[in-house]
Amino acid sequence: MSAPQIEQLIQLLSRLPGLGPRSARRAVLYLIDKRESHLQPLIQTLQDVAENVKICPVCGNLDTEIPCSICSDAKRDGSQICVVEDVADLWALERASLFKGYYHVLGGVLSALDGVGPDELRIESLMARIQSGSVQEVILALPATVDGQTTAHYLAERMEKYPVKVTMLSRGVPLGGELDYLDDGTIQMAFKSRRDV
Amino acid sequence: MSAPQIEQLIQLLSRLPGLGPRSARRAVLYLIDKRESHLQPLIQTLQDVAENVKICPVCGNLDTEIPCSICSDAKRDGSQICVVEDVADLWALERASLFKGYYHVLGGVLSALDGVGPDELRIESLMARIQSGSVQEVILALPATVDGQTTAHYLAERMEKYPVKVTMLSRGVPLGGELDYLDDGTIQMAFKSRRDV
Repeated sequence: MSAPQIEQLIQLLSRLPGLGPRSARRAVLYLIDKRESHLQPLIQTLQDVAENVKICPVCGNLDTEIPCSICSDAKRDGSQICVVEDVADLWALERASLFKGYYHVLGGVLSALDGVGPDELRIESLMARIQSGSVQEVILALPATVDGQTTAHYLAERMEKYPVKVTMLSRGVPLGGELDYLDDGTIQMAFKSRRDV
Repeated sequence: MSAPQIEQLIQLLSRLPGLGPRSARRAVLYLIDKRESHLQPLIQTLQDVAENVKICPVCGNLDTEIPCSICSDAKRDGSQICVVEDVADLWALERASLFKGYYHVLGGVLSALDGVGPDELRIESLMARIQSGSVQEVILALPATVDGQTTAHYLAERMEKYPVKVTMLSRGVPLGGELDYLDDGTIQMAFKSRRDV
């Protein structure tokens, strides 16, 4: 139909999360149309990322430096470690810019269905960081899913023997959340953990 | 927050049609995770497309050959030209594989609001193709929007002096379309142009 290169590019783009064949086709036509202003910079940036971005051996974040800019930032609070599922969640917390401690990216959550056991996750290096001493609080910022909560309980159990406080994010009605549009589970949870005004 | 290269890549991807900042972030993390199997092939294919894909001077299609593989296919029916707004529409018709004539990509539609006049579109080259003689039917496969229909009428008027039949796609209820979900305009149109069973 169209040139094999174009077909291949559509196929590669359509496999990205959030894109399907139709949006991939539109993206390819857009890129060909904006060859100088968008396609060339995109190629260069992809190459730059492919060559220079590494996984931080301390926390699992992605950066061009090793250790990453967060781990090597001495101004951050060494008494707190925030455990997240993946780098996207770390970015989400950094965007909120409320946490000034260090992170630990697990690289997933325990899942019997997907065959993810403790050895598949960055758990031993987390334990090593906690054992090293300066950590006083571990915040489990894991997803409010069954797998996320299983992982949180597993980690809390593993940390029992260390003198660290283990906390997790509060559950309830999200900001701007209208009760009518919330699932029953969230309403139940918010109701049960209601607090004084 | 994260490395400048990653930020720049997210920004470039989020400007593609169909992608926003959130899906661009997910796509970037996916690509870094699949560095060998997806990121490297994507870079190579983008480079290949950037270097080799050209606009066909005859019809406006995109291809690595000039004229494009459709225009240079002598088996196609030279008596029919199908006029489309852009290459995406040409691809859509080719996927349906029902038309065996040649195409002409206008590169847009007339739009007073966006300041697109006849000179901005590939109209003169269409007239030249019609004048050359072998064309008997021009099918205006333009979008069923106000601008699309304005363009169709403009083109039909321009072609009045040539001995060609000018046709357009029929309008009506789309396949699988439930009346309840259709807009009033489509229902009116389908009702007015009703036909015998």
